[in-house]
Amino acid sequence: MTDFRDMGERAQRARTFAGKLGPEEKNKALLQVASALTGRAEEILKENEKDLAAGRANGMHEGLLDRLQLNGKRIEAMAEGIRQVAALEDPVGEILDTFTRPNGLLIRKVRVPLGVIGIIYESRPNVTADAFSLCFKAGNATILKGGSDAIRSNLAITAIIREALASAGLSPDCVQIIEDTDRAVTTQFMKQKAYVDVLIPRGSASLIRSVVENAQIPVIETGTGNCHIYVDREADIDEALPIIVNAKTQRIGVCNACESLVVHEEIAKAFYPRFREAMEQAHVEIRADKKALPYLPGAKEATEEDYRTEYLDYILSVKTVQSLDEAIAHINRCNTKHSDAILTRDKKSADRFLREVDAACVYVNASTRFTDGFEFGFGAEIGISTQMLHARGPMGLKELTSYKYQIEGTGQIRR
Amino acid sequence: MTDFRDMGERAQRARTFAGKLGPEEKNKALLQVASALTGRAEEILKENEKDLAAGRANGMHEGLLDRLQLNGKRIEAMAEGIRQVAALEDPVGEILDTFTRPNGLLIRKVRVPLGVIGIIYESRPNVTADAFSLCFKAGNATILKGGSDAIRSNLAITAIIREALASAGLSPDCVQIIEDTDRAVTTQFMKQKAYVDVLIPRGSASLIRSVVENAQIPVIETGTGNCHIYVDREADIDEALPIIVNAKTQRIGVCNACESLVVHEEIAKAFYPRFREAMEQAHVEIRADKKALPYLPGAKEATEEDYRTEYLDYILSVKTVQSLDEAIAHINRCNTKHSDAILTRDKKSADRFLREVDAACVYVNASTRFTDGFEFGFGAEIGISTQMLHARGPMGLKELTSYKYQIEGTGQIRR
Repeated sequence: MTDFRDMGERAQRARTFAGKLGPEEKNKALLQVASALTGRAEEILKENEKDLAAGRANGMHEGLLDRLQLNGKRIEAMAEGIRQVAALEDPVGEILDTFTRPNGLLIRKVRVPLGVIGIIYESRPNVTADAFSLCFKAGNATILKGGSDAIRSNLAITAIIREALASAGLSPDCVQIIEDTDRAVTTQFMKQKAYVDVLIPRGSASLIRSVVENAQIPVIETGTGNCHIYVDREADIDEALPIIVNAKTQRIGVCNACESLVVHEEIAKAFYPRFREAMEQAHVEIRADKKALPYLPGAKEATEEDYRTEYLDYILSVKTVQSLDEAIAHINRCNTKHSDAILTRDKKSADRFLREVDAACVYVNASTRFTDGFEFGFGAEIGISTQMLHARGPMGLKELTSYKYQIEGTGQIRR
Repeated sequence: MTDFRDMGERAQRARTFAGKLGPEEKNKALLQVASALTGRAEEILKENEKDLAAGRANGMHEGLLDRLQLNGKRIEAMAEGIRQVAALEDPVGEILDTFTRPNGLLIRKVRVPLGVIGIIYESRPNVTADAFSLCFKAGNATILKGGSDAIRSNLAITAIIREALASAGLSPDCVQIIEDTDRAVTTQFMKQKAYVDVLIPRGSASLIRSVVENAQIPVIETGTGNCHIYVDREADIDEALPIIVNAKTQRIGVCNACESLVVHEEIAKAFYPRFREAMEQAHVEIRADKKALPYLPGAKEATEEDYRTEYLDYILSVKTVQSLDEAIAHINRCNTKHSDAILTRDKKSADRFLREVDAACVYVNASTRFTDGFEFGFGAEIGISTQMLHARGPMGLKELTSYKYQIEGTGQIRR
């Protein structure tokens, strides 16, 4: 059984330790971790081969085996990711605000680490290194709970990181991993409120739902993206088609891919035939409403279920609307508050869409695929938040911090 | 039974409505609500009298009856609070950041309302008006779940607010109240993830624990304050004593009152006798460690339990330490991350304390009683957060908002 008390106390000590480190110490350690991972790639690959063999024996399908598989190039990419995190600005200690009260109290709002971050994830072993490096750079201690499919790879990667931290003179407990792969242990982990400040689940919708339902620790919900593109009456069709193809097909299994198209009826006649051709070329199946079907021979009729579905596949739902109002209402009803776009040359419609569509990222005339920490210039990403609290959209280093107030007085008492 | 689906859908519509209101519309409505509350005070007092009668019949003790009781002055204070909220700057729409990416995408980070806020609270009926006005001004819809003790008062206040909103031409569903006082309904409320974006519990430690353990909606934890004052070796005793008396006794039952004193052993001999005298005058019972007891005749010995207790009473625990390090470690072990202070003339010790004590508010040479939205100049307060996520310390209007990214492009697609 996992000893959460021991693990939690180690994490709390490591968190105090990590929170005091300066940028140079953290960056030096990160570079050493990167070297250790590439230098000891053979050890990781040996353990990864065992995970793959177990996966094959259990009949794991090709897509999952591919996510699980490591090789020299992927380990190098992991190390390169860590080096990039080392190069980012340290968010800890940033002064967010300073003000003086009439009684003379000087109040400073200062950025501090979140504390102990729990990451619950699935089969990609690269998350192990990714999550550690971001949390550590933001001054946090991390407890990892990876999927059982990748457990041997994850243990190998974590052991190498811990040894590299120790040889850099730092606390190896800045990252710990739960070795037990029993599901009951995951549920127990979600209740360790005394030791863990925040949980970030990364993975499938069902994993995230389970964390949200069972956790007694604040959770940052990430992931599900039922993203829409609205083709307005005033859209430029030549510009619209490449954006739609890009958002739908540039990478199919990601949360910022477009899953549903909303089309103003006044552009339907000009738009739908060209759209149909573009989707045919891109091998995308269309599921459309009754108004659109006459323009889209061969398309299936869409159900309400379709409008609620994040396909992560070569399928796109289509809905024809009579107005911008109807488009906004439809999107707000069906979206997952992730990313939605309007394609239009009408500035007024664009502005209303930007204001009234409720999503972390709202676009005018661009692909939803840009919802991403790197594309936003954050230099890194721990996930994309779809909740309202704390952080929304791409989360980088700053989103892995909190703040505190430092108040300096000269003997003030409250009257 | 409460129909959470109907209530939730109303709240979602009201939230869309409230999010689009400009400051003038909101402020006008708030002033009308304030007038309606004072103008219809008799109705509220009549219902409040029923709550009080039921309370007396159930043997409710004096302190709670006092919290529950309304009168003309208290209703006027409630209205005045709403007028003050109307006078505050509207946080919605504030542009928090703007940047342009190399591909030409213009990204704006804009402040938006949180959405639907659920407030779960206990016997003070003034929270009904308070919580509504703050949430509404920040563009949110609110669902209230008050305590059964104050149900008739809360229903009367909510009905008056809803009617005032309707007569101002706004959606009355900007505030709704759960009429059912069954505990099972509260638990059911905490699981309405489809309709409620955030839960804020206000009340006792046990209420807050219950919300944290049962909610499937993000929670902002407020409240418990085991606040420390550390009397450093270099403290100015003349300045220290009034601060300690103020922090302990200016108001005894509040979360930012001091509950524990930590004293450097090198100042013990000079400090403790004068401290004892001050506490005797203030009628404060002392529970001290073995090192302090010889200086504090009559004091009880403190247990580990004492150092973990938020007394909310005329009791103070005392701990003698050998160093600043020991003081910081003791405070970080026992505090509730609320508010802690150092009293010292040594700038180096002050700076270390500010950095290393993990609390929402860390003070130098001032009373912990200043941890308060009004004292911080926020003009209002929905509570004091003791968690790391989203908001820390006093929460005003800005802390009742989230943000979204608005991205303007000219046909950009991802490569």
